[in-house]
Amino acid sequence: MHAFSDKPGQTIASLGEKSLLKRVRTWLGEAAPPAPAGMGDDCAEIPATENNRLVTTDSVVLGRHFEATTDPRLVGEKLLKRNLSDIAAMGGIPTRAVIAGFLPRRLRLSWLEECLRGMAATAMDYHVQLVGGDLAETGTDLALNLTLLGAVNYPLYRTGSRPGDWICVTGALGGSLRNGRHLSFIPRIREGQALALEKFVHACIDVSDGLAIDLLNLLGEAFSAELDPEAVPVHPDAVEAAKASGRTPLDHALNDGEDHELLFTMEPLSENAWAAWAATLEKRGLARVTRIGTVTTRGESAILDAGTGRPFPQLSGYDHFG
Amino acid sequence: MHAFSDKPGQTIASLGEKSLLKRVRTWLGEAAPPAPAGMGDDCAEIPATENNRLVTTDSVVLGRHFEATTDPRLVGEKLLKRNLSDIAAMGGIPTRAVIAGFLPRRLRLSWLEECLRGMAATAMDYHVQLVGGDLAETGTDLALNLTLLGAVNYPLYRTGSRPGDWICVTGALGGSLRNGRHLSFIPRIREGQALALEKFVHACIDVSDGLAIDLLNLLGEAFSAELDPEAVPVHPDAVEAAKASGRTPLDHALNDGEDHELLFTMEPLSENAWAAWAATLEKRGLARVTRIGTVTTRGESAILDAGTGRPFPQLSGYDHFG
Repeated sequence: MHAFSDKPGQTIASLGEKSLLKRVRTWLGEAAPPAPAGMGDDCAEIPATENNRLVTTDSVVLGRHFEATTDPRLVGEKLLKRNLSDIAAMGGIPTRAVIAGFLPRRLRLSWLEECLRGMAATAMDYHVQLVGGDLAETGTDLALNLTLLGAVNYPLYRTGSRPGDWICVTGALGGSLRNGRHLSFIPRIREGQALALEKFVHACIDVSDGLAIDLLNLLGEAFSAELDPEAVPVHPDAVEAAKASGRTPLDHALNDGEDHELLFTMEPLSENAWAAWAATLEKRGLARVTRIGTVTTRGESAILDAGTGRPFPQLSGYDHFG
Repeated sequence: MHAFSDKPGQTIASLGEKSLLKRVRTWLGEAAPPAPAGMGDDCAEIPATENNRLVTTDSVVLGRHFEATTDPRLVGEKLLKRNLSDIAAMGGIPTRAVIAGFLPRRLRLSWLEECLRGMAATAMDYHVQLVGGDLAETGTDLALNLTLLGAVNYPLYRTGSRPGDWICVTGALGGSLRNGRHLSFIPRIREGQALALEKFVHACIDVSDGLAIDLLNLLGEAFSAELDPEAVPVHPDAVEAAKASGRTPLDHALNDGEDHELLFTMEPLSENAWAAWAATLEKRGLARVTRIGTVTTRGESAILDAGTGRPFPQLSGYDHFG
């Protein structure tokens, strides 16, 4: 399905705001409770017992995060999952979300329906309630924003790494664009909660801009990293991508964005304790964690090869805007 | 200042995302605390002691809510105030906000600066902390969204009106476009809190689409209203607007949007008790409240003239999209 149509009867312009909102509520279904807990009043009311200590916001824009021919269900899914991944990185439990749509008049009604149905299905999967929203008309750009609340007892931050800490990552990295994984990745919610419960985990971030960039974001200006290039878990998609690009799979694993794995630092454990912890995670069906390097104070915001001590070879990460 | 520029050096495109975000943080100043309470981590952390039971979201779009030549400080102010007004309508205390920007590359850097400085100044006025955000690039449309959290003990809802209730409104209505009041109105935060504390106040809404439409939104399908046309408080801007439009001042007061006054229903009081309450509000420097009609069960979703019993004459409210 293409996002836009020139047949006015097929577009959102064919409806007034009130009828459109009524349809939106239908499409969101059980994921959207009625007022006062949900849409329909000036604000949504949140139960006093639910202590939302986390808030994050993220957007998707046509042409940057998805295309006009992208399955709209995946667009809705991606928008929510980008935010879920941020809650995951802090060790939180996602609870409630509000949505804002920026919609051109030519937008196909059925595109919006599928997008919101996809979002609602993902919301149900992650026990998120869609409690509020706003629709506004644009000229030509199509964009959506979502703000997500989350509960947490012991939040994980980006800060907190110490020299000598192990650098670890969940899952495998690279090539997320290859098979549409950037649209329908798995936010590491359960993994984040497992990490947040362990005192030996010091800091955490989700990999959205690529390992190389986000590692620097995690370490800040005080620390550097020594990475073991052999240890970096390379996703099969990165191997595939490398065949097409002529770059190495490792390059893709380090620099492709939108993996949404968790990158974290932790106090070194004994080999036995590490193996036991890894086994526990595996038994719970969580993503595998891999040690890929060490936090050092050598250099400034640099990533070095643990073997040679020289600057890590393939760091071409991008500074994308949005 | 015009929002756009064709000199690349003057636009946001001249900066990478990282440098732009750094500037944004500077412009927001004290209104934006550092991480973990504010921007800089995957989520913002909210103190466990702050029980945010309200959430609302609203947007502004160029061409609909402001023009390319509108003072950008007022655009930032308006975005926050639209949300503040929703918190006010529930009787809440605004606490924290996250912002999302949808910005074309041609956007003037100094426009964004002034917009965010205006928002930050308003945030400081209302003790709101700007704790998170996201910037995304669009093709041509310029839009901003804000999600606002609020604390409340005894929230007011749109539902709760009873037959025989008085219909009341704060301030005066109409002509908000005339002198830019739609950009820099006063959200009735203190008034909303005062209303929420009184058991005799039954229901409340903020007047964004115009009194006629929002009264129907407040009453729902179960009730009707009898309004006293003489009693409706007409804003001086509505009188001015009427001179230009050829419509009556009352028509403007009933149908112009974006007044952001509070419209509420309450149990009838004795004349003495009403006078005493009004005096208390006045002593506290709050906006004047005016009785304009009565909730009835006559008719369906209708607004009748209290004198003649006939449908109220001038109801041309618009069904705007966004």
